[in-house]
Amino acid sequence: MRVEVVAVGTELLLGQIVDSNSSWIGEQLALAGLDSYFQTKVGDNLTRIAEVIELALSRSDAVICTGGLGPTQDDLTREAIARVMGVELEESEEAAERIIAMFGGRGRRMSMNNLRQAMKPVGAEFIPEQPGTAPGLICPLERPDPLTGEAVPKVIYAVPGVPWEMQEMVSGTVLADLQRRAGITSSIASRTLRTWGESESGLAEMLAGRMDELDRLADSGAPAATIAFLASGGEGLKVRLTAKAATAEGVADILAAEEQVVRGLLGGLVFGVDDDTMESVVLDLLRERGMTLGVAESLTGGMVGSRLCDVPGASDVFRGSVVSYASDVKFELLGVPEGPVVTEDAARAMALGARRVLRTDVGIAVTGVAGPERQEDRPAGTVCLAVAIGEPGSAGQGECLLDSIEVRLPGRRRQVREFSVISLLGLLRRHLLEI
Amino acid sequence: MRVEVVAVGTELLLGQIVDSNSSWIGEQLALAGLDSYFQTKVGDNLTRIAEVIELALSRSDAVICTGGLGPTQDDLTREAIARVMGVELEESEEAAERIIAMFGGRGRRMSMNNLRQAMKPVGAEFIPEQPGTAPGLICPLERPDPLTGEAVPKVIYAVPGVPWEMQEMVSGTVLADLQRRAGITSSIASRTLRTWGESESGLAEMLAGRMDELDRLADSGAPAATIAFLASGGEGLKVRLTAKAATAEGVADILAAEEQVVRGLLGGLVFGVDDDTMESVVLDLLRERGMTLGVAESLTGGMVGSRLCDVPGASDVFRGSVVSYASDVKFELLGVPEGPVVTEDAARAMALGARRVLRTDVGIAVTGVAGPERQEDRPAGTVCLAVAIGEPGSAGQGECLLDSIEVRLPGRRRQVREFSVISLLGLLRRHLLEI
Repeated sequence: MRVEVVAVGTELLLGQIVDSNSSWIGEQLALAGLDSYFQTKVGDNLTRIAEVIELALSRSDAVICTGGLGPTQDDLTREAIARVMGVELEESEEAAERIIAMFGGRGRRMSMNNLRQAMKPVGAEFIPEQPGTAPGLICPLERPDPLTGEAVPKVIYAVPGVPWEMQEMVSGTVLADLQRRAGITSSIASRTLRTWGESESGLAEMLAGRMDELDRLADSGAPAATIAFLASGGEGLKVRLTAKAATAEGVADILAAEEQVVRGLLGGLVFGVDDDTMESVVLDLLRERGMTLGVAESLTGGMVGSRLCDVPGASDVFRGSVVSYASDVKFELLGVPEGPVVTEDAARAMALGARRVLRTDVGIAVTGVAGPERQEDRPAGTVCLAVAIGEPGSAGQGECLLDSIEVRLPGRRRQVREFSVISLLGLLRRHLLEI
Repeated sequence: MRVEVVAVGTELLLGQIVDSNSSWIGEQLALAGLDSYFQTKVGDNLTRIAEVIELALSRSDAVICTGGLGPTQDDLTREAIARVMGVELEESEEAAERIIAMFGGRGRRMSMNNLRQAMKPVGAEFIPEQPGTAPGLICPLERPDPLTGEAVPKVIYAVPGVPWEMQEMVSGTVLADLQRRAGITSSIASRTLRTWGESESGLAEMLAGRMDELDRLADSGAPAATIAFLASGGEGLKVRLTAKAATAEGVADILAAEEQVVRGLLGGLVFGVDDDTMESVVLDLLRERGMTLGVAESLTGGMVGSRLCDVPGASDVFRGSVVSYASDVKFELLGVPEGPVVTEDAARAMALGARRVLRTDVGIAVTGVAGPERQEDRPAGTVCLAVAIGEPGSAGQGECLLDSIEVRLPGRRRQVREFSVISLLGLLRRHLLEI
């Protein structure tokens, strides 16, 4: 079954908003075992929206439209679908009542325009999920087969352009409805192993034997996962396992078994699964060990702290960060000995300083050259990382394990800084696993 | 003249990469006075790429293809264009030599595949800019007019998918070539005024009279700019002025005059122009005044420091930041009196602490509730900001001006944190302008 995505909105064509909705839907379709060969962006123009939907129907079985469901005269997706279906729009009394109630409840002024959102093409149904004011639509229709002329059932979905509203409708209704129409009775799912510390070609080499084996298994009709790599910059490299089986339990079994095999081959390179991030993993490891964390940053300027704070519940582990951008601040506040600051020695002194000043069990530090210019005669990308790990509850007092490394990170200024963050947290993770 | 964008790459359809290239190109086309009604994403499939290009030619005068110019067998844009043109690919000796020289110079291994990048459809030309290994293409062709059957000249451009390579070619060659073909002899340009502190509807109200006036001027054929608003989240609201005239000088004159008028109406809300950011503006103001800056952050976790460090040359002004995520760190390191920390008093103490601890002339601080949970019984979005401004060279010593405000920021956790950053820097800017 082929599915196309049509993103509606002049602001998308003008580049005022980047269309990330189509990308997200494309990813979900692939995971659901549905093919998608084209994605189109079109402006807020009735004729052109209808033209694009008609074209999509001519080469695919289903079309998902995102955007253009708002209350204003510019929001034309409903009208365009009605035109393609060859029907009128009708007001749904139920939807109208819901909209009126919504505005009443929030004490907001409603204009007559808002009732446009209660309109649907005759023959269409509303999508049950409705996280915002815009209802989504399921619009079945028929088109003649180009060869036989026989009527073939097709379907158009309309979901809002607001990402979380769109996502709730696609995950809640659209994907399952598509799978039912496609006669996909088998279940499909994937699991992503998050890795850090090896290149894509390195990972591919480590998994080459297993991937060949999986190909042979699949050829023989045996249940087998597939493996794919996704480079994700400062988020590391993702190894995605996908499996298909008659039941959801069957899929879960294949994925669990394959995860064991791949983890066996990749060892400590795998730092997490699916939504895990290096930040969340490190915070969990520290929490389990009853340890608090303090950071000293230089070239990252606060990115390490900011990323840690992105994780809900970080506050029981992460106490703070000293961003010592000026060398003076490293010397005065963190107690780094005066001298060059792009060195492992400086990084170690910074980690000890962070631990002491912030009174944490663990201190970590990063200093280096973000570029583009050299600094202290070291090239851009030169980064020194250090960890200082004391006993749980030591709060900056007493002995601690001290380690450091120097690395040469690739890319431009922004990449160097992003890679610095994950490199530092990755170093801490390696040490915590040994405790 | 109508121009379509075709983004090539299966990874775009699968959502592994978000297609931001089309958005960027769309923005440039609009600024160049060229219409663009459709943008399409298509996978690495020869037939489908050719089909999409053919379709685009049927409804537009020019097509810009981005992606699919790499050296591997998956990179099929060259082949697809040759098919659409009805010609063969030929190797360019000059391009081949350049590729061989590039690999030689970098000491990298070259495979025969790399020579695929020296191929071009017969009749095509290379784009002069070539920042990477992939040459771009200009491919003129003809298509019959659907009504008269007369041959109409059309053109396909191929640029790489790597954003900065694509941008260099589009800015350097493609836009001017399109304008020449479109017979656009007039010049068009725009200037963006960056604002902070007023809502979109508020700005629209302040400029409504002027916008009516510009409409009347335009209707009467007089030279007049146009005004558009672009909401940019934590970057503030942009007011874009666009003007068209016979010469570049004429455009510059209209824009300069209009900027004066709009600045007169918006006053201090305008913090910068075009590529200015609130960070760069504040750093410039401090630099002019010979002042150094220290930051104390809580809910932002390091974002203020990180954003300041994004600005090249920040190091002569920005000395560092104390990320005091735990209340203890606020009390111990910054000297905030023990007690509630989501208060203006706490923010003021943090600003003074940052100034003292980091030995800077100016200290700024932010504390608040990022959400989703309440904290100290204050709702998510409650944010307290403070500035402590001493004499230039005071380095944390002596008297200082102290000010603070409490604001209620909208949105979810991430938005609250982003708005906190610009709100804090905006407050500092207001005070610096009075010095």
